Formats: sequence, structure tokens, C-alpha cells
Amino acid sequence: MTEEQPANEVPSSLSPQILAGDTSDVYFLRSHQIMEREGVNPRVTMEFFPSGDGILCGMREVLALLGKALPSESEVWALKEGEPFHLKEVVLRVTAPYLSFGIYETAILGILAHESGWATAARECVEAAQGVPIVSFGARHVHPAVVAVMDYAATVGGCVSCSSLAGAQLAGVNPSGTMPHAMIICFGDTVRAAIAFDKHMPPDVPRIVLVDTFHDEPEESLRVAGALGDHLHGVRLDTPGERGSVTPDLVIEARARLDLAGFQHVKLVVSGGVNPGRIREFLEAGAPVDSFGVGSYISGARPIDFTADIKQVEGKAVAKRGRIPGIIANPRLHRSI
Amino acid sequence: MTEEQPANEVPSSLSPQILAGDTSDVYFLRSHQIMEREGVNPRVTMEFFPSGDGILCGMREVLALLGKALPSESEVWALKEGEPFHLKEVVLRVTAPYLSFGIYETAILGILAHESGWATAARECVEAAQGVPIVSFGARHVHPAVVAVMDYAATVGGCVSCSSLAGAQLAGVNPSGTMPHAMIICFGDTVRAAIAFDKHMPPDVPRIVLVDTFHDEPEESLRVAGALGDHLHGVRLDTPGERGSVTPDLVIEARARLDLAGFQHVKLVVSGGVNPGRIREFLEAGAPVDSFGVGSYISGARPIDFTADIKQVEGKAVAKRGRIPGIIANPRLHRSI
Amino acid sequence: MTEEQPANEVPSSLSPQILAGDTSDVYFLRSHQIMEREGVNPRVTMEFFPSGDGILCGMREVLALLGKALPSESEVWALKEGEPFHLKEVVLRVTAPYLSFGIYETAILGILAHESGWATAARECVEAAQGVPIVSFGARHVHPAVVAVMDYAATVGGCVSCSSLAGAQLAGVNPSGTMPHAMIICFGDTVRAAIAFDKHMPPDVPRIVLVDTFHDEPEESLRVAGALGDHLHGVRLDTPGERGSVTPDLVIEARARLDLAGFQHVKLVVSGGVNPGRIREFLEAGAPVDSFGVGSYISGARPIDFTADIKQVEGKAVAKRGRIPGIIANPRLHRSI
Amino acid sequence: MTEEQPANEVPSSLSPQILAGDTSDVYFLRSHQIMEREGVNPRVTMEFFPSGDGILCGMREVLALLGKALPSESEVWALKEGEPFHLKEVVLRVTAPYLSFGIYETAILGILAHESGWATAARECVEAAQGVPIVSFGARHVHPAVVAVMDYAATVGGCVSCSSLAGAQLAGVNPSGTMPHAMIICFGDTVRAAIAFDKHMPPDVPRIVLVDTFHDEPEESLRVAGALGDHLHGVRLDTPGERGSVTPDLVIEARARLDLAGFQHVKLVVSGGVNPGRIREFLEAGAPVDSFGVGSYISGARPIDFTADIKQVEGKAVAKRGRIPGIIANPRLHRSI
Amino acid sequence: MTEEQPANEVPSSLSPQILAGDTSDVYFLRSHQIMEREGVNPRVTMEFFPSGDGILCGMREVLALLGKALPSESEVWALKEGEPFHLKEVVLRVTAPYLSFGIYETAILGILAHESGWATAARECVEAAQGVPIVSFGARHVHPAVVAVMDYAATVGGCVSCSSLAGAQLAGVNPSGTMPHAMIICFGDTVRAAIAFDKHMPPDVPRIVLVDTFHDEPEESLRVAGALGDHLHGVRLDTPGERGSVTPDLVIEARARLDLAGFQHVKLVVSGGVNPGRIREFLEAGAPVDSFGVGSYISGARPIDFTADIKQVEGKAVAKRGRIPGIIANPRLHRSI
Amino acid sequence: MTEEQPANEVPSSLSPQILAGDTSDVYFLRSHQIMEREGVNPRVTMEFFPSGDGILCGMREVLALLGKALPSESEVWALKEGEPFHLKEVVLRVTAPYLSFGIYETAILGILAHESGWATAARECVEAAQGVPIVSFGARHVHPAVVAVMDYAATVGGCVSCSSLAGAQLAGVNPSGTMPHAMIICFGDTVRAAIAFDKHMPPDVPRIVLVDTFHDEPEESLRVAGALGDHLHGVRLDTPGERGSVTPDLVIEARARLDLAGFQHVKLVVSGGVNPGRIREFLEAGAPVDSFGVGSYISGARPIDFTADIKQVEGKAVAKRGRIPGIIANPRLHRSI
Repeated sequence: MTEEQPANEVPSSLSPQILAGDTSDVYFLRSHQIMEREGVNPRVTMEFFPSGDGILCGMREVLALLGKALPSESEVWALKEGEPFHLKEVVLRVTAPYLSFGIYETAILGILAHESGWATAARECVEAAQGVPIVSFGARHVHPAVVAVMDYAATVGGCVSCSSLAGAQLAGVNPSGTMPHAMIICFGDTVRAAIAFDKHMPPDVPRIVLVDTFHDEPEESLRVAGALGDHLHGVRLDTPGERGSVTPDLVIEARARLDLAGFQHVKLVVSGGVNPGRIREFLEAGAPVDSFGVGSYISGARPIDFTADIKQVEGKAVAKRGRIPGIIANPRLHRSI
Repeated sequence: MTEEQPANEVPSSLSPQILAGDTSDVYFLRSHQIMEREGVNPRVTMEFFPSGDGILCGMREVLALLGKALPSESEVWALKEGEPFHLKEVVLRVTAPYLSFGIYETAILGILAHESGWATAARECVEAAQGVPIVSFGARHVHPAVVAVMDYAATVGGCVSCSSLAGAQLAGVNPSGTMPHAMIICFGDTVRAAIAFDKHMPPDVPRIVLVDTFHDEPEESLRVAGALGDHLHGVRLDTPGERGSVTPDLVIEARARLDLAGFQHVKLVVSGGVNPGRIREFLEAGAPVDSFGVGSYISGARPIDFTADIKQVEGKAVAKRGRIPGIIANPRLHRSI
Repeated sequence: MTEEQPANEVPSSLSPQILAGDTSDVYFLRSHQIMEREGVNPRVTMEFFPSGDGILCGMREVLALLGKALPSESEVWALKEGEPFHLKEVVLRVTAPYLSFGIYETAILGILAHESGWATAARECVEAAQGVPIVSFGARHVHPAVVAVMDYAATVGGCVSCSSLAGAQLAGVNPSGTMPHAMIICFGDTVRAAIAFDKHMPPDVPRIVLVDTFHDEPEESLRVAGALGDHLHGVRLDTPGERGSVTPDLVIEARARLDLAGFQHVKLVVSGGVNPGRIREFLEAGAPVDSFGVGSYISGARPIDFTADIKQVEGKAVAKRGRIPGIIANPRLHRSI
Repeated sequence: MTEEQPANEVPSSLSPQILAGDTSDVYFLRSHQIMEREGVNPRVTMEFFPSGDGILCGMREVLALLGKALPSESEVWALKEGEPFHLKEVVLRVTAPYLSFGIYETAILGILAHESGWATAARECVEAAQGVPIVSFGARHVHPAVVAVMDYAATVGGCVSCSSLAGAQLAGVNPSGTMPHAMIICFGDTVRAAIAFDKHMPPDVPRIVLVDTFHDEPEESLRVAGALGDHLHGVRLDTPGERGSVTPDLVIEARARLDLAGFQHVKLVVSGGVNPGRIREFLEAGAPVDSFGVGSYISGARPIDFTADIKQVEGKAVAKRGRIPGIIANPRLHRSI
Repeated sequence: MTEEQPANEVPSSLSPQILAGDTSDVYFLRSHQIMEREGVNPRVTMEFFPSGDGILCGMREVLALLGKALPSESEVWALKEGEPFHLKEVVLRVTAPYLSFGIYETAILGILAHESGWATAARECVEAAQGVPIVSFGARHVHPAVVAVMDYAATVGGCVSCSSLAGAQLAGVNPSGTMPHAMIICFGDTVRAAIAFDKHMPPDVPRIVLVDTFHDEPEESLRVAGALGDHLHGVRLDTPGERGSVTPDLVIEARARLDLAGFQHVKLVVSGGVNPGRIREFLEAGAPVDSFGVGSYISGARPIDFTADIKQVEGKAVAKRGRIPGIIANPRLHRSI
Repeated sequence: MTEEQPANEVPSSLSPQILAGDTSDVYFLRSHQIMEREGVNPRVTMEFFPSGDGILCGMREVLALLGKALPSESEVWALKEGEPFHLKEVVLRVTAPYLSFGIYETAILGILAHESGWATAARECVEAAQGVPIVSFGARHVHPAVVAVMDYAATVGGCVSCSSLAGAQLAGVNPSGTMPHAMIICFGDTVRAAIAFDKHMPPDVPRIVLVDTFHDEPEESLRVAGALGDHLHGVRLDTPGERGSVTPDLVIEARARLDLAGFQHVKLVVSGGVNPGRIREFLEAGAPVDSFGVGSYISGARPIDFTADIKQVEGKAVAKRGRIPGIIANPRLHRSI
């Protein structure tokens, strides 16, 4: 047992239904039954590898799952959460009696695929941004049952924060957010909403005001800055696509008008359809963005499929057709259980 | 209250955490607090619309959530589960005091986006297949926390069945599956595994045997058919990419060799990288496929993003910049709450 | 002499310098001198044809020029101003002593090429607009020495009006325009400028106010409409590229907000980077544009090159290498001189 | 007053009509009237910038126009004629009472746009030609009213000469030309025409004979060279498109056949559809071209649009939406008035 | 024996070396030896099918080869020479003792592949030409050992004639040709060569003179027509690529100039880089071509690969992996031996 | 006479028909007759050059042909067999009385074109393979009359061997081959066929067994290796396209399974649709191929067209239009006759 985090502590994202195997492909459950009845339960070595390059995420959950399932004589080698992996690189190798973990094949593959997909997309944004912080704003594009793991994966990929409370808790960061258009519309005026926000929120919540709801963005920015003064941390530009979305020129202009009016301290947050390509466009155009909010590019990222292969049965090299029999060495693996 | 399904019955896929608003963007929670303190809680009409065409899914959960949240004087109009929708068409309109449902904006959008994405991808496969049944095999590509809703959405899109137990239960269908490569490797021989399967499974589970593990597929098909005779329902061709994946010619050849040997009753199931384009290739090449198993094309589908806009406040038409103030008529909507 | 307009009346666009041959290629002037000294001056037939399809423009000037130059026994056949022509179709045929008109070859070709280029581009816009009127706004993209003929050509191509005074005079239409950004900036406020415009302009000048200078366009439209009421004819949307240019959605939204406030009578004029492709986008998106202002698509159009060939010398068919000797019949030609 | 050329000397290309403002957009004339009546005439700073990279041309005319219009307390900074400029670089800054020059906005923009377009196209040819001289042959593709400024602009871009007399006068160069096909056809034979040319032209006009009219080009070149001997300066290859235009191989062959016959002194001029791409093809293929005649690539070049923005009103930084308020520094500008 | 041509008459294109099997792949010779020694010589049915669509050619030779090789109890079914075939359609089925014909597999496949490739390319030209005759001029692009079969295949594909004597003999047509550039250069003048040709050739050889050697093509055509008068059958335009090849406009001009001079009877033959695309260009441009000479498009055509499969052994359906066991019905086959 | 190989020894690939001129274009035969009768037979210099880059092949035959034809005072300069040549480089220069060799123009061009096409394609494969040997397997795609010269040319291009007996004899190498599918099907089992092959073939014929006929390739490889042991030289993978052709992964897997079973000595030969692109894919994927069999990429290669031009007549520089008169120097030429 060399693992760094206690294997017997199951993250909140693993529901009892998952632990019971209910989310597995039914044929694993049937296989379990048949093999049990036939008394077939060899000690096997199973290897897991991805269908592309990426950033590994979900291993924390997978090790917790295996930690609960495997008998004591088992052995698990794995890459660590957050490490990069390459096409077909072995990221996990489990040696144990097959029936002790066979029904979890579906869950293990799904956890790694989905979370690595999110973490990898987040990393692409982070790399494009060259140091400008990225916040995950994509909770609204995925089912709430995976909001927490999605936002957790985004932070593993390099996001400094996320908008969902559940994700922030799982990732151990402060949630980040500004205010919704809905609230401003209910108040009927951005400045009125901003003043109420400033009045009721604890001092450690940064005052970042959304400025595209009713008026031209630079104009509204100046109104809000006039009203909140030093309390104002920043403004968020989120111009809708119907108005051409946020452009680099808009950011440059807003900065110039704020500076001209003496509001150099006000930060500029950009959101709305942000992705690595658009991030690069902003940076190349010299737009002084202070942080980006990224939504569906991260949360809607395709999972990176993983495959599991039995490569040894009772110590003997095997493989199905199309695969190389026997273990494929990977010196980057750590003994994890 | 005109809704067809009882709103007070919450599907198992909505966890207490979701109902508590923990998976929402933190700024909705903060807005709630601010508006409550300021006494701002107008009766608003909020409309939800998609960013593209597709098949609606998730409305069942959304109505259950709203049914729990909304006070009695509220009004909800919605499209029905499984209906097609068009870009920017209003699929849901809620009229209620803002604070009664504002914190669920994230969850409602996420449910509709993710499930409609899956249902739409499933529908594309179903339409490409022109009557050949499609089974959802993609549980292994998504986090187990959404396996059930993903497979449910696949059936809403037209899949006849799915591989996960939890998905099948949510969708009210029998789960479908064959056997894993892992089991065949543990048994050491496909025929031996097939005989054990036939011996222990209840009679209503169709005997479908995976035939690409150790030998050439048509050869193995003949061996298995010889061993199981009339018990054999079908064989599954799942040739790995390293061997060129399943080709139309392989299906045609397997059919010809089975027929020549008198096994006309044995069905052919094709899986492995199946998507609408490949389905059309099989059909255009005249390959006699009896059913397709589709994995990541459905389960890895991108969510179809939805947007929510307040369009009336206390009966008065409003909208943020970029949107048309006031309700947008849609005669296809049904009074649902 | 069958021409419809008096050939001895030279349009103002033909300067004395042009009539003197100063703008010709120098080798025509030299040839004239040599041939005169050698006593070579055959009666020739010269044909003019274009390098592509288009709308003929400039023939009015060309006939005036020839009318002044040719001796009485000459003969000129031509297509009429504004008629469509096809690649290599003969649009003008002159039979006269060579030295009477040879030095004008450069000018005739240049007039037809440049003006037909503008007229053809205008026609493309007019056809794309399916009845929505087009106004030529491109004076600012060409040298002032051709502003008048450019705007004249735009009306030959189908524009209902143009922005330059000189062009409108040559074309016999009322000039059309709104107000410059410069004036609004000098007044410091759009509404103040609009009121001054309304106060000082004669009643037959339509009040069309530019609404993108200081505030959000729909917001400014409502302010201006409130101030001018029934006096307001329309507003012009000319959003700069830095703000994403005018989009179909912006037009739709401005219309909706004006209508909601009771200003159904206010017209919407769209300008800024308009071309046939963008016109089609507006119409296909259902944007209720009342007229388009088109700038550089028309005024920056490439000339459609023309070529002149001598096809008969003293009644005998000739041609240089690469061309067919003798007259090429075209029943669409009219006897014009 | 630091300008290098006398501002009170107006180039012949600026007609009285232009100076009277007749070629302006009508709304500038109307604005002038309104502002005058309202007594609004602030001292403003207006900046002019281009929509792309290029070679500046037309500033000579613009400064003459401003020199006549501006009161004595005005200030003008500008780039010099012929300098390269970059996208959005300020090329002209005028500080003066608005009403003193506002009506010339259309003319200034049009002069710079059209002439810079021609100069830039000429420069592209000159750069492609790597030292082989380029002559502007494009008078026949533009309206004679701009022939002079077009050919002037071509020389600013680097052409060594031009074919129009008016252009050569404006640019201060000797016009360049050979002879027209028309003259050869009138004479009935290339050699006869060449002998007449040689007989009547002053000695300083180079004898360059067009050799594609009646016979194969190398064959005709040899005939002409035989007839004129040392008098012959060069031959022009202008093969029509119907015969495949001039190819690099044709130039190489003509050179070889002339050299073989002892006419090494005869130059080869190439014309007909020449553009930077084709120039590069000739040079890369090793074709020994002595000079290129370029027509519509230069004269039909699209104008490079310019924009004018008021950036200060009475010393205070302003700008319309989408632009940065205040002066944009450009150390390359010279005080010009 | 139902074949239409005597199988015992071997075409001259089948050399003794081919009949001896020397041109076969060595492993067929070795197999023959091994099977003979082992006494393995089953009666097999072998089917031959192509890798694409095309025109069948070479079957005449193949049947002659099989006619010599097969014992009397054999059976051969085949498509006829010149028939179209489709991808994977069976074009030949042989039932016989394997050792009687096995060594000819290489030769049969090669004959069908190479000759069908040529015939198919010829057919493409013929179809593009819509009735204008095509002559095969490609002997110079292939090894002389296949010149005869190549030109024979071209006529099977629809060419009316060919340039090689050997090909014309095999195909039973008169060879067609004009004169080489070499001869004209040796004579030093096209007209002199033409007169000598007319003097010495028998009257049934059409006088077609090559007119691009020394002078402009239409000019030379007129000279030759003037010299030979009614004796002249046609002229061949073969302009080299260095001069832009033959263009549709050149054909139109040559026709016009010949007609103008009263030589309406002179035909126009076009050659040089002719292929189906260029043929269509000529026809679409209305060029009055009387016949096309096609070279490397036909003679350099890629062979259409064929495959041979044993589908029955002693009456029992078999096939290697990847192929369907048993005979594939084709009602278009004829009993040929 | 400086040639390295005796010119009076004619290779077997030059048939009497070729030597008699029967395969020439008929117009050369006619020209011969006419010139003879007119007494026109100048001493000419003819140059031959290609239409692209490549590897020279066929010069051996061409020199043999000229050696028989030319009178003693002739002179021939040539590049050597197997040398690379460039577009338009002179590869052969013949100075002789025209009538002594004029009729062979067709044959000389065809030999060089066809054989250089094959040699060049072979060279591309050889270069892609970076040292892995290539064997020419393409006899089945060409007419048997050119099988020998095709395989000879492939060896000139760098192939180590070829499959045809006739080609191997002409090239002076041992023919190379494995066994046909037909033989295995006749024996009914790959192992049985392999044992017979081993029993009857001389020891110097390497035992290379085709392993894709009846069973999965790695499985069959192990069966054959088990049966033949050390006698087995290698296996050939030739998976049909219907099964996805041979993939790099299949080679890697076959190697791994053979090695795991102790058969490290067994070589892997890959064939079926091999071309330079696929060769590079195999090498880049790390597939341990021991040799490639290449079929139609070499044997179906397009000929590289050559052209012949008379450049001197009786010592005087000439050329037809489009070509440079006189000899074009090439220091790489050798005096060959």
C-alpha cells in the first residue's frame, strides 16, 4: 500500500449506486454470476490505456473504488492525478482476482474518460492564456449530477476557480462568480444591483459587475465604477452573440475609457464563447483581459475514451486479437495500492 | 396543473444535493441572498431556448424539480420529452416569483443541455439505420453518475435498449448486452465461455456471443454456432481498430459462411466505432447487420447549450441587450404546471 | 444619325483635357502624327468588347465624345446605357476614318471599363436586396474626380440614390444622406444634433439619424424617437467593426424595441461593410431592413476591362493574330450615330 | 507652416468642383449649414487611418486642399507621399475649427484611398520584379478623369514611367509607349509601320516595335530587327490570351533566336495580363525580360479605404463608440501645415 | 465449345515465351511442381473480377491462351471483348483441373488489366468527344512490345484508328497519321514537305499537314492550303506547351481564316496533351475540331487490376478469408469454351 | 565506339517486329519513303528529353537498337542506365543521317518512357523503405509482353528481386516468391501446403508461407512455425482489403506473438496495396517489416513521356517553334556510340 491518499475514504462523488455496480454494463454483472457459478476466477492483470493524448483526471476516484473492492493481495500501479498521458500509454495496471473488480470496468473507464476529457480541455485554455487566469463557468452545460466532478477536473487541468459551489468544495477552492443577468433585470438597473451586491456580500467576495445588460458596455462600466469607486473589483464583459460577442477591440476600448476616467484599478473579465482559439486572438490583439470565464469549451468537451485489456491470466501473457500479449512497461507508473 | 406526470414524484436521478441548489453557479445563491435581503422578488417570466436543433430530453426531470419548487400560483409551459426543437425555439416558459426558482437556472439548463445532446445523437444514429435497431453501448465513456440519464436519453432518442442496468431501469426497458472480452479471456476459449453463458443465464436473456477474441470472426462464428445450435441468438462482431475494425465485407462474409453452414437463424450484431456515417456505409454496401451497438458517438455527444432569459417582470416586457423584449409565442408549448 | 440623346451635348464629366486627348496613351498620339505624315488614314471598323459579363455604363459619355469627333460619313452602332452584356459581346462598333477617332481609344475603353464596373457591382447589390432600396454611399472611397460618374453609374446599376451632390446631379436624382459622426460629436449628443437637424433642414429632407455614436443603438433609437416623434423618418445603424458591425439580430431587436414603444413608423437604414453576401444574410435572417447604404463594394469595384479591335480596313476583313477577322454580328446593337 | 511644398499651389488634378465641395457626401454640406446656424464650430482634432497596409499616395493633393481651406491657427501633421503605412496607423492629423474643413472629409478620404490603392499595387509589382523596370500601361482601364492621378500614383509606387501623357506630366517623367495594334493593322505590315515610326519620331523616342500582330513573335522580331538594325531599341511581346498569352518559354526562345541572328542589342518588353505572380513566374523560369508593362493590376486595384475620426473637441479626448478617445501617437508624422 | 472465335488460333501478340509460362510469377511454377509431385490436382472453379468499373479488353487473347491449355472437359464462361464491367463483377469463370491452367494466372490477370486500362481510357475520350472521332497517337509513350495491343485496345474502346502499323494490323483498321516535325525540319519548309508528301503517297492516304513547325498556325495553314488546294485533306494543330498548347480560340480562328480564304474543305486535327477534360473544353467553347489525336491519356492509363479467386474445389464452395465462398452469379457471362 | 556494353548484342526484349519498325507510328515509315524518293537525308542531331524528373531506364535497349541501325560515322551521347534525370534534361543525343534512325523515334521514346516510369516508381518505394528490401510483385498487372522489362526496370530502380521468371532472367537476379492462395486452397490447409513446399523445393528456395488464407494471421503463423520449425524462413501477410488490409498493428502483433512462442527467426513479409505512403506509415508506426512486396504501384506507374527534337541540320542550329535552336549542353552525357 503505497498510495498517497487513503484508499478507504471514498469521495462524495461516488454514490452508493456506483459502488453497488448498478451503473455498469449489464454484461459484466452477468459475467460475474456465470463465472462465480463455474468457479472461474483467475488472478489477472488488466491494463487501462487512452485513445489519445491528454491530462489524467479521475484517478483519485478510481483508486478509492479499487481500494474498497480489492482483496489484500492485489497490486495497483497508476499515473497520478493531473499528469499528462499519451495515446495508448498504460495509465493503470490492476493485478487481482478477476471477480473482485471485474464489474467496475465500466465505471473506471467512464470516470477516467469523462474527467480526463474535461481536464484536458481546461489545460488547452490555460496554455493558450499564457498566465491570464481561467475560471470554469460551464456548470450550466452539464447534468447537475456531474457538475462537481466537472469543475473539479477543470481545476486539475489548471483553472484557478470555478462557478459551482459543489465543484469548488470538491476541488478545495473558493467558488468564483459575478452576478446573473436575471438579478440585474429584477433590480431594473445595473448600478442599483451593484450597490445591493456591495451592501450585502461579505468583504472577501470580490465585487465584479456584469455590464452588458442594459447599456453599452464601456458606458455602463463608467457608471458602475462611479457608483462603487474603490469597492469595485472588476467588470465582466459578456456581450451576447446577437451583438457580435466580446471583441478584442471592445476590451481595449473599455480599458481606455476606464483609465481616462481614473479607474485603473478596475479589472476586466471576459466571458461568452471563450475557447483556446479566441483566447489567442485576444492576446495577439493586445486586449488587456484580466481573466477569462470559459464555459462549454471545457464542460462540453468530449470524453477521451479509455480501453481495458487483460494482459495476463495467472501470470501468463495473453491478449485478445489485435493486442500485444503481456504487460506493456511504463516506468512512469507508481505503486498505488 | 395540466401536467401529465405527477410533479411531486422526483426521479431517482435528481439527488438531494441537486435539489438543495449545491450544484448551481454560486452567483445564483448569492443573488438569492441579496434579493431576499433587499425584498426584491418580482413575478417574472423566464424563457429557455436552445443553441441549435435537436431532440428534447430532460424535461421530465426539470418539471419534477419545478413541481417541488414553485408556489401554487405559478405557471409552466413546456415542450414534451422527446419532441424535436429548433434553434432558438422556446422549449420552456416559467412564470413565478423569481426567488422561488432562480437558483435552479444552472440545473435546468444543464439537464436539458446534456440529455438533449445525448438524445439528439441517438436520433441521428436511429435515422441513419433506417429501421435496423440501435443499442446504446456507451456507458463506459461517461462518469457513472450520469450513466443512467445518458442511457435514458439514448432511448428517448430512439435506441431500443441500452447496456447499463441503471439506464435500463430509468428508461423502463430490458438491458441489453452480450459478454465482455474479459470473460472470454478468463475462460480461455470463446466456445467454453458461450456454453457457460448458455447454461447459467435465464432463458429470456438472448445468447449473443462475441466472436473476435481469439480467432477469425467467421471461423469463430461457425464454432460457436456448432456448439450452441438453436440456442444461439446471434454473434457480435467487434473487431478492434488494430485489425481494421468491422468492415461491411466482413459482415457479408460472416453471413454467407453462416448461411452456407445452415445457421441462417444467427443474428449479426456490429459494434466498435459505430456512428451515423459508418451506419450508412454498412447499409449502402448491403451488409446484413441485424443490430448496431453505438458507444461514444452517443455518450460522448456534446451537450446542446440552452439559454434562459427573463422576458417579463411583473407583466411588463423586458429583455437584456441583444434579446427581444416580451414573450416569444410558441403554439407547440403545453401547460405543464 | 439615329441616336436618342443629342451627340453634340457633352456631359460635364468630360473635361477639356479629355477632349484634347491628353489622357490617352502617348503611343496613340504618336501614331496619329506618323500616320498623318505618311498619309495613311484608312476607313476602318473598330469593335469594342468586354472581358466579362456586366451592365453597360459610360456609353452616354462615349457617344458624346464620338459625336464631337467623327466626320459626317461615319457610322456608330452601340448597346444602350444600362443594358446587360456578355463576355466578348460587341457593345460598340465604329466605322470611320481611323485618324478621326483613333486617339480616343484609351478614353473610350476607360470610360466603359470603369463605369460598367461600378454599375455591375451596384446591380449585384440590387438583385441581392430583392426590392429593398440601395443607396450608394461610396464617394469616400474614390478620387473626387470620379465621384460624380461613380455615383451616376451606381444609379444606372439600380441604386435609388447616392450620397454625393455631384453624382446626384449627373444622375438626376435627389442626393441621400443622414448625418456624419463628426457632427454628432461636435454637438456632444445625438439627440441634440437630431433636434438641430430637424430645426434647420427643409421639410423635404428626410430626418434619418445616426444612432451608434455614443450609446447602444436601440437605446439611442428610442431616445431620438422620443425627441423627434413623427418628424423622425428613420435611424441609421452603422455599428463599427470593432463592435462586430451591424448584425441581423441587432436590426430585429431595434425594430422590436421601437415597435414596443409605439414607433412603428421609424425606418431602419443599415450601412457599414454591406455587400451582396451580407445583404442576403440580413434578408435570410428576416431582419426588417428598410434600406441599405452600400459603400466600397460598389465604389471600389474593379473595372471590367474592354478591348478594341480593328476588324475591317477599307471594307476588307482583317484582324490581328488571335482574333477573328471581320465584323462579329450582334443584333442587339442600335445605330447610334 | 513647415510644409515642404507650397500649400497655396493646387495640383491640376483638383478641379474647381472638388474645391467647391460638390463631390462631397451631401450630409457634410447639410451639417455645415446646420452647425453654422446653431453657432457650433468647435476646434477639433481629426485623425485619418487606413484599413490595411500600403504605400501612401495623395497626400500632396490633400495638403494643397487643406492649405487652401484652413485658417492660420490650424495644425496639420502627416506622413509623406510614398511612405509605407500600416493597418490603423494615423497618417494625417488635422487640428482646426471643424467648419473650416469638415466638408472635405469625403474628398480627403477618397484621394488617399484611391491613390494609395494604385501606389500599393504598383509597389507589389516593383518588388516582384527585383530590379526589372515596370511601366504603367493601365490608362485604358480607368475613367480618363483619373488617368493622370492613377499614373502619377503608379510612379509613386515605383514605376519608372507610364503610358499616358497627362500622367507623365503630373509625375514629371517621360511617357513611355510602343505602338498600337491599330496602327500596324492600318499599315498592313509590322515592318512597314516600324520603318514609318523610325522615320518620323524624334531620335530620343526609343524604337520599340509590337511583334505579335501578324506573324509568330520570334519570326516577326527577326524581320523587324533585320529592317531597323541598330535603330531598333526593342520589341514588345503582347500575345493575346486566345493564343495563351506571353509565356516564359516564348521570351527565352525569342532571346535565343535574336541572339543567334546577332541582334543581342534588342530589348524584350513583356505586356498582357502581367501581375506580381506572373512577374515572379517569368523571373523564376529565367526569362530574360528587359521591362514589364503592367495594366489593370495597377489601374484596377481596389482603393484602400481610410477612416476619419474626431479624437479631441476643444482639447478634450473624445471618440465615438468603438474607438479609443484621444490622440493616438505616431512619431513618424511630420508637421506639414 | 460455344466460343465465337476459334480458340486454337493464337493472336500474334502472344509470344512463345508467354505460352511457356516464363512471364508468370515464379511461385506459380513452383506450385505446379509441388502439386504435381504430391498428386494434388483438383477440379476447381476460378473467378476473375476487376478492382473498378471499365471496358473489358484482352479476353480475345485470354480465351486463345485457355483454348490451348485446357483439357476437353473444361468449361469457361466470359464477358465479351468490349463490354462494360463493374467493380467486382465476375468477367471470367474457368472450371478445370487446376494444374491445366494455374500457371497462367499471372498472364491472364495482366492481359485483362493492361488492355482494359487502355480501352477504358479510350472510351472516356470517345464519350467526351460526342461523335468527334478520336485517333490513338500514344505509341511513343509505351514499350514497343505492347504498342500493338495498346492500339488494339484503344480501338476496342472506340478510337476510329491508331498511329502504329502493328496496332492497326491487330485491330484491322487503316493506320492514321500525318507527318513528323522531323521531316518538316529536314525539308526546311512545311510547304515543301507537304508537296513531297502529296507527290509520293498513294491517293488513299489523306493529306494532313502539321502546321505549327515554323510559322504561326493559321498563317501556315493558308500557305499549305494555297499550295495543295483540293488535295489537302486537313491540317494538324499541335502547338507545343511552351507556346501555350492548342487553345479553343486558335481552332476557331484557324477555321475562320481558312473559310474566309475559301478553304472550307480543310479539316482541323487537334493533338498535344488532349484528354477528356480538354476535349470537353474544346466542345464547350464551340471549337470546330474535326478529329482529336490522343496520346498519353490512353497509352499511359493505369491498368485496372484484376483478381482471381478459387471459389469451388471439386464442386464444393470455398474461399479464402475475406471472400464469399462459392460461385457469384453473373447472367451476362457467355459460355466461351 | 566508346560504349561499355557491346552494341551488336540485342537484348531478348527487342523482338524482330520492333527491329523492323512495325511498331512505329506509320507517319515515320511514310516519311522515310518520301524522303528517300526525294533524296532528302541530311545529317541531323536529335536530342531526347523527359517531361519530368526520374530514374533513367531503357537506355541499354535503345543503344542496342541504335548500334544495329547507325552507320559508322555516327555519334551518340547518353546518360547511363539507372542515373537520375531532371525535367527537360537531354538524356540522349544522336548525330547521324536522318534516314538511318528516323523510323525508330517511336520505339526509342516508348522504351525510355515506359521503363523510366517503372524504375522511378520503384525508386520511390526503395527510398521510402530506408533499407528494408523491396521485391517487385507486379507482374499480374501488366501485359505479359512487358513483364520482363517491367521487372528489369524495377531492379534498376532498386528492387532486390522480382516475382517473374522472365524479369529475373533479364535483370540477372534470383526470382522471389512465396506461394499462391490457389495452392493453399487446393491443399485445403496452409500447414499441409507448407509441408509439401518444404519437402519438394530445393534448399536454396526460402520457405516463406502465406498465412492469411484460412485463419487469423498470427494464429496461422504460429501453426506454420510449429510445423516447419527452423526450416521456416518467413511468413507473408497479405490480408485482403475486405478485411482492412495489413495494418502496422497486425505486423507488430504477429512479431510479438511469434517472439513470445520462441520463433524470433521467422521473417515478416508484407504485401497488398503497398506504396511509398503506406511504407512510411509502417516504418513510422514501428512495424518490424522484414521486406515489402510491391505490386501495382510499380507495374502500373505512368510512363514518363519523352520528346525528341532535331536541333541541328547539317551542323546548322535549328528548332521548331517553341524550342531553342541548337544543341543544349549537358556535361553528364557519355559518348556511347
